[in-house]
Amino acid sequence: MSSRKLHLNAFLMNTGHHEASWRLPESDPHAHVELDHYVELARTAERGTFDSLFLADGPQLWGNVAQRPAGALEPLTLLTALATATRHIGLIATASTSYTPPYNLARTFASLDIISGGRAGWNIVTTAGAEAARNFGLDAEPAHAERYARAAEFLDVALKLWDSWEDDTILADKASGVWGDDAKIHPPRHRGTYFRVEGALNVPRSPQGYPLLVQAGSSEDGKAFAARYAEAVFTAQQTLTDAQAFYADLKARTVAAGRDPEHIKVLPGIVPVLGSTEAEARANEQVLEDHIVHRHGVANLERLLQLPLGSLELDAELPAELPSEDAVEGAKSRYTLVVELARRERLTVRGLIGRLGGGRGHLTFAGTPEQVADKIETWFTQGAADGFNIMPAVLPSGLAAFVDHVVPILRARGLLRTEYGPRQTLRERYGLPRPANQYVKTPALV
Amino acid sequence: MSSRKLHLNAFLMNTGHHEASWRLPESDPHAHVELDHYVELARTAERGTFDSLFLADGPQLWGNVAQRPAGALEPLTLLTALATATRHIGLIATASTSYTPPYNLARTFASLDIISGGRAGWNIVTTAGAEAARNFGLDAEPAHAERYARAAEFLDVALKLWDSWEDDTILADKASGVWGDDAKIHPPRHRGTYFRVEGALNVPRSPQGYPLLVQAGSSEDGKAFAARYAEAVFTAQQTLTDAQAFYADLKARTVAAGRDPEHIKVLPGIVPVLGSTEAEARANEQVLEDHIVHRHGVANLERLLQLPLGSLELDAELPAELPSEDAVEGAKSRYTLVVELARRERLTVRGLIGRLGGGRGHLTFAGTPEQVADKIETWFTQGAADGFNIMPAVLPSGLAAFVDHVVPILRARGLLRTEYGPRQTLRERYGLPRPANQYVKTPALV
Repeated sequence: MSSRKLHLNAFLMNTGHHEASWRLPESDPHAHVELDHYVELARTAERGTFDSLFLADGPQLWGNVAQRPAGALEPLTLLTALATATRHIGLIATASTSYTPPYNLARTFASLDIISGGRAGWNIVTTAGAEAARNFGLDAEPAHAERYARAAEFLDVALKLWDSWEDDTILADKASGVWGDDAKIHPPRHRGTYFRVEGALNVPRSPQGYPLLVQAGSSEDGKAFAARYAEAVFTAQQTLTDAQAFYADLKARTVAAGRDPEHIKVLPGIVPVLGSTEAEARANEQVLEDHIVHRHGVANLERLLQLPLGSLELDAELPAELPSEDAVEGAKSRYTLVVELARRERLTVRGLIGRLGGGRGHLTFAGTPEQVADKIETWFTQGAADGFNIMPAVLPSGLAAFVDHVVPILRARGLLRTEYGPRQTLRERYGLPRPANQYVKTPALV
Repeated sequence: MSSRKLHLNAFLMNTGHHEASWRLPESDPHAHVELDHYVELARTAERGTFDSLFLADGPQLWGNVAQRPAGALEPLTLLTALATATRHIGLIATASTSYTPPYNLARTFASLDIISGGRAGWNIVTTAGAEAARNFGLDAEPAHAERYARAAEFLDVALKLWDSWEDDTILADKASGVWGDDAKIHPPRHRGTYFRVEGALNVPRSPQGYPLLVQAGSSEDGKAFAARYAEAVFTAQQTLTDAQAFYADLKARTVAAGRDPEHIKVLPGIVPVLGSTEAEARANEQVLEDHIVHRHGVANLERLLQLPLGSLELDAELPAELPSEDAVEGAKSRYTLVVELARRERLTVRGLIGRLGGGRGHLTFAGTPEQVADKIETWFTQGAADGFNIMPAVLPSGLAAFVDHVVPILRARGLLRTEYGPRQTLRERYGLPRPANQYVKTPALV
């Protein structure tokens, strides 16, 4: 048995990833804006010795509040509160490179990294959609390629800011009255296409140097960006074959970018729906599907496919003619995944909504704990994953069920740590090195 | 005895407000970036039944790291962590209207207000100085008047965002599958001079509606802004007469702006240096002065007075000719206060640095606990203050000394609450009403 271990991330969303989860009798429809809900989830994930937990984000009010719990606590704020309620688990916040000045975002992440003792991670997104753009003075979203060019420059600026204090800047010499060594402060003096940032960060270098860099876009631009910067990648894959191809491609791109392929961890999303028998699991899945309000689902699908509202029929397949991925501005790879899923399984709109309602394109898998563990082990050992992004359909119950029933199996098979051991940074949990400071020159060997 | 009670705010800064505090044997020169330091301070302030605690901020690395502890934890992040470590005390963060998009700041404050159970406050600043501007793509700071015009529009946008959900938007009707009432969502659709913000906030309306609005600029623009928006004002006043004039002026301006003068609380800053005798207090003050490194102090003073570096002599008075306040871009009222202090007391540069080293223009007062309580009572009862911004010279010891020795006297005199009682929002602690939602029309009386 290899000593290679699974990396598990808990993707926390409202009362669960299934859009109808809030309608179940057990669910609290106010939970998504209550700290206690997230504290319970974080502690459950920590009981399951997960590497990290994760919050998605976009700076806009999504969709229609009639449909499902809307609004959220801002991720960096919520994760800071969770940092004080946990001890080991990593805390990964989504934040956009399109709508926040880099100086502000760099200092907030550095602060969270200090407060959490080195447990901060950043899921870097460029934020698709005109709705977000219109909250920040723009009429339309920047083009996909431009968003990624801006993201790359944003990263360069942020890395300069996080390195702007050397680790040993603070002298704290009370006797002479000299607190710090000014020669170890390196103002970025950055003048680029999108940003000009002159001065050093006003936060000392944090325990990890900077947060774990995570990425989740699977478009061509997204994969190129991941190969260059990302240390962990979240991805939506429906089949083992597709997941293996994605995994091999991303590792190869990372090598081509001059990096160690071990320094990028690939985590496909999985929506486990558990039952003590397969039939019970499928029945649990059916209960969720039965709570979907289809008029909402049709409108969401029309929006994703960039079709006029009212153009889809619930009990027909998708139209034969659809735009190509190239013509889509927004979540390009999600678009292609959804269209291919519908074509491959010849799903009606109703069937497609049922499949997407649980995972929005992520792999939904209903089964017994053994079956879920088998699936995870297969993908993990067959070159498709370094770990998984666990996306319970219903929260908190689905996460507790995974921790209570699947985690013990994974541990028994030697695939998952049985305890955290000493305190580690998030990067250490993922088996990644602490980054060097770009301004510190390694002395030449004599 | 009136039932009117003092409002006390703990202004937390590093190892204390005195610039040399970090050099004392008792001080930890790393404390300013350690969560535990602030948790201890917050709990001490809560033991003293303070209304709130407060963090200053600017998005730049101030001055020279050689001089004193530099860098900080970002205030909204730090206060979120402190929200989970406290139960009653208000949490006031400084944030700039010049360098953050309003959508982002509005959602972070709304999130903190929810997480803290209604204890968030916002000290609104426009951020003086070219150093900050150059971290955000500008070559120089915007002019003083333009910064305030932008701040007023920022407030209007933020208030629209905080009101964009009516309080009763969430229906949570599981049976029908309707979560929220879309008719109670009000997108700002704001198109102004500085900002365009289309969509509703992605956070439901918070316990306070929005954070307590605090302001601290005492320039003409600052006072006009305070009269229109502020619910609490921090101010630096050196004499009872000046403080009375400021207090009367601000209350009159608030009435002229159509507001209740009781709905703006004026809190001058005080730097108490305590001793069991007056002589011991003065000796404690002298120890701090003896730790000042004068070359730093001269440079800071030259920067404040906008004089060339090297132009001041340590043992001479200020030059007879200095720029007028009108010619100063930046902290205008602080400039005038410092010049008037030096002229009034005929201080040498060395003497002025000694006076400013403790409070940067705020009232430094060395004395016994009785004397400090007398000072506070006089200002409170003589029309100069609704409470105080307590700025200990040394932290944590100075705050603990105030709570242990001055607070009991104020309580015995009936000037300060003896316990918090039931949980309240920050606005309730300050005796202010919860703001109405601008989009909800009060029905006409029949």
